[in-house]
Amino acid sequence: MKEAFFETRTRQQVLDLVSRFRPVGTETIAAGRASGRVLSADITASCDVPHFNRATMDGYVVKAEDVSRCSPETPVTLRLIGRVEMGQPAGCVVERGTAVEVATGAALPDGADAVVMLEYTERLPDGTISVTRPVARYENIARTGADFEKGHIILRSGKRIAPKDVAALLSVGAMKLDVYKKPVAAIISTGDELVPPEEKPGIGQIRETNSAVLAALIERDSGVPVPAGIAQDELSILKKAIEQAMQSADMVLMSGGSSVGARDLTLTALESFHDSEILVHGIATRPGKPTIVASIGGKPVIGLPGHPVSSLVSYEVVVKPILDQLSGCSRGMVHGRSGSTVKARLQRRLPALVGRDEYVRVRLERDENGLVAIPLERSSWAMSTLADADGWILVDMNTEGIEAADEVEVTLF
Amino acid sequence: MKEAFFETRTRQQVLDLVSRFRPVGTETIAAGRASGRVLSADITASCDVPHFNRATMDGYVVKAEDVSRCSPETPVTLRLIGRVEMGQPAGCVVERGTAVEVATGAALPDGADAVVMLEYTERLPDGTISVTRPVARYENIARTGADFEKGHIILRSGKRIAPKDVAALLSVGAMKLDVYKKPVAAIISTGDELVPPEEKPGIGQIRETNSAVLAALIERDSGVPVPAGIAQDELSILKKAIEQAMQSADMVLMSGGSSVGARDLTLTALESFHDSEILVHGIATRPGKPTIVASIGGKPVIGLPGHPVSSLVSYEVVVKPILDQLSGCSRGMVHGRSGSTVKARLQRRLPALVGRDEYVRVRLERDENGLVAIPLERSSWAMSTLADADGWILVDMNTEGIEAADEVEVTLF
Repeated sequence: MKEAFFETRTRQQVLDLVSRFRPVGTETIAAGRASGRVLSADITASCDVPHFNRATMDGYVVKAEDVSRCSPETPVTLRLIGRVEMGQPAGCVVERGTAVEVATGAALPDGADAVVMLEYTERLPDGTISVTRPVARYENIARTGADFEKGHIILRSGKRIAPKDVAALLSVGAMKLDVYKKPVAAIISTGDELVPPEEKPGIGQIRETNSAVLAALIERDSGVPVPAGIAQDELSILKKAIEQAMQSADMVLMSGGSSVGARDLTLTALESFHDSEILVHGIATRPGKPTIVASIGGKPVIGLPGHPVSSLVSYEVVVKPILDQLSGCSRGMVHGRSGSTVKARLQRRLPALVGRDEYVRVRLERDENGLVAIPLERSSWAMSTLADADGWILVDMNTEGIEAADEVEVTLF
Repeated sequence: MKEAFFETRTRQQVLDLVSRFRPVGTETIAAGRASGRVLSADITASCDVPHFNRATMDGYVVKAEDVSRCSPETPVTLRLIGRVEMGQPAGCVVERGTAVEVATGAALPDGADAVVMLEYTERLPDGTISVTRPVARYENIARTGADFEKGHIILRSGKRIAPKDVAALLSVGAMKLDVYKKPVAAIISTGDELVPPEEKPGIGQIRETNSAVLAALIERDSGVPVPAGIAQDELSILKKAIEQAMQSADMVLMSGGSSVGARDLTLTALESFHDSEILVHGIATRPGKPTIVASIGGKPVIGLPGHPVSSLVSYEVVVKPILDQLSGCSRGMVHGRSGSTVKARLQRRLPALVGRDEYVRVRLERDENGLVAIPLERSSWAMSTLADADGWILVDMNTEGIEAADEVEVTLF
C-alpha cells in the first residue's frame, strides 16, 4: 500500500483528488466590495434593465412609419414638439407627424418607436425637422428589459466576481450578496535551520522567507493567510502545531525545511492523525516534487518543499486549486486571475475596421477540442454582455478582422 | 489648433503622452506587506546569501581529492567522524580520509570542499563509509555569497514587487522598504440620468454603476479609489467637483453620462482651468473612443465614456497606464498583473524529461523583434533566480523540451 503513495501525481490528478474538499461556509457582503469573492447563490434580476424604453443614440424619437419612405431627395418633415431632459420622464406623447429631441440614454415618450440619428436630420427655423433616412421600428432603442429581464439569472453561484461584474449587480440594485467565506490558511514553517527574517542568522541558520511569500500569494488569491511561526523539527511539536492551526484554519500549509529528514518528519506527523488520509505524495513537476497533500478530519493539510522555487511551484500546482475549491469556485466555469489570458478558437468570423482597436467581449465554452470563444453582442450600453462575458479579445487596428476557428487570446476579466 | 485635439490616439501614443506624469511620493513599509507596491530605491544585499558554505544535497561532506579515483569497482573508504545538525555550526573539521554526514541546507565543516550524494555511498558497520563515485570540487555546495554577494543589487527601483520577490528581500533582512505611495484616484460620476445604486431609479433614471467598477479596478491595480459621488451636469458644479477632488487626489476620473451633451460639458469643464492642457481627446478603440485626458496643474484628469463596456476599455487603454506612471513603475521593465501571460522567443534550447512538468524561471529582455525569454539557472534553492525572474514557462510533461527561438508563453510573477 505504501508504494502507491509514492506515485507522483500530475496536475490533472491533483485537481481530481482535491475536488473532495468543500467550500468553507457563506456570508453576506456589500456588492461594492465583492470583487474577487465567489457567489454562493445565483443573482437574479429584481427588475427590468432598463426599466423604460431608452434611446441609444442622440437624435429624434419618431414613429417609424412616418419616415419609412423618406430619402435625401424626398425628406419627410416632422413637427418638433419638445425635448426629453436626461433623467426625467418624457412628459409628452409622440403622435403621427411629430418628433421629440432626445440624447443617448433618455427615456422615450409614449407613442414613439424609433430614434432617428442626428446626422440624418436637419433642424429647420420653423420648428420642424427634416428626416432624410428611414429607420426601422425599435431601431436605436433599448427596450424595457432588453438588457436584463426581471427574473433573469445575471450571475451564477460558483462564479468568482470580477470588477466588471459589479456593474451588473448594482444595475439591478443587488447591494448585498451571499458569497463563500474566504478560506483561512494557516502557515507553519518547519526546519531547524530557520530563524525569523528579522533575526540575524548564525552559522548554519537561514532566514525563513517561504511563509511570507505563501502569505502574499494566498492574499492575492482571496484567501486569509495566518502565519503560525516556525515549529521545530520534532514530531510532538509538529503534531501540536498542526492541531492548533486546524482549530481556526480551513487549511494548513507546512512550509518545509530543505532536508529529507524534515520532509519525512512532516509526513510522519501528517500520518499520525487517526482521521488522516494521504492524497498526494509527490507531484510530477520539477521543481516541486516533494509535495504532500493530506486530508485530516476533512481539512486539507499540505506539506510544501523548502526550497523557495519549489515552494512556488507547489503553490501553483496544489495550493491554488485547493484554495479555489474551498472558496467555492465552480470547476465548470472559466476562472483565472484578472488579466491572465487563455487561448480559444473563435466561434464565428469577426470583421473589424482598420485604424482602431476593437475590444470584443466573449463568453468561453468548452468542447472536445478545448475552449471556444463566442463573441457577444457589441452594444456598449449593455450590462448583460459584461455579465455574460468571461473576457475579451483585442482585434488589432492593423487587421481587418479574425476568421472563424482562428486561435484567439482571451484576456480574462 | 482645435482640430488636432480630435485626432484619435492609439494605445502607443497614449503611453507616450502620459509618460509626463510623475510618481506621487514615497513612503517606508514592511517588506511582508510590500507585494504589489513599486520600489523607489534599489535594494542591495546587506550580507552574503548564504553566509556560510551550505550543502545542497543530503550526503557526506568530503575532500574531493580523497574520492577522485573511486568507482563502483574500486570504492574509497572514509572514516565517518560525525554529523552536522541542521541550524548548527559544523563543530568539526574534515581532514583527509574523513567524512561528515550532512542534510540538505546544513553548514559545511572547515576542510570540506564537496558533498557526495547519499546514493553513491554505503555506510559500513565499522564506522566508515564507502564512496563509489568521484565528486568535483564545490559540487553540491552553495558557497558563501553564491546566491547574493554582499552589495549586489537584488531588486531595482521602479520594479513592482511580486509575491515571490518578498523571499529575496527577507533573505537579506530587508524588513523595511522605500516604495512609491499608492496613487489616490478620485472618481466623480456625471450624468443627470444617474442615481446612486441603492436608490430605486425613476423613469428616465438609471443606477450609477461605473464608479464602483472603476474603484474595484483601481484597488486591484494598487491604487486607492475615492468615490466622490454624482455631480450634476452643470459647468459650475463640475468645476467645483474637480477642484475639490484635486485637493486630496493624485488623479481624477470623471465617469461620464451617456449623452454627447454631458461629454461636451466635461470637456468644457476640463478646458476651463487656467493650467489645463488637453492631451487626449478620443482614442482609436471601439468601444471607448470618447475618452479625454487632461493635465490640470500637472495632475491627470480623465473623462471616461458612460457606457459600461466603453468605460472598461478606457480604463485599460488610458487609466491603467496613468496609474502605473503615478505608481512609479519603470517603463523599461516588464510589468503585468500576476498570472497574466506574455509571448516571447526562447533564447536557448531547453531540454526536458518526458513525464514531469518543468517550471523554468525566465528573465525577459526586449530586442528589435520583441521579447526574449532567457532561462535562468535551475537550482531551486537559489533566491537569486527568483529575484531576477520576470516569470516562468511551463515545459509540459509530454514534450522533450523547447527549441531555441520557439515562441513560449511566459506567466508573469
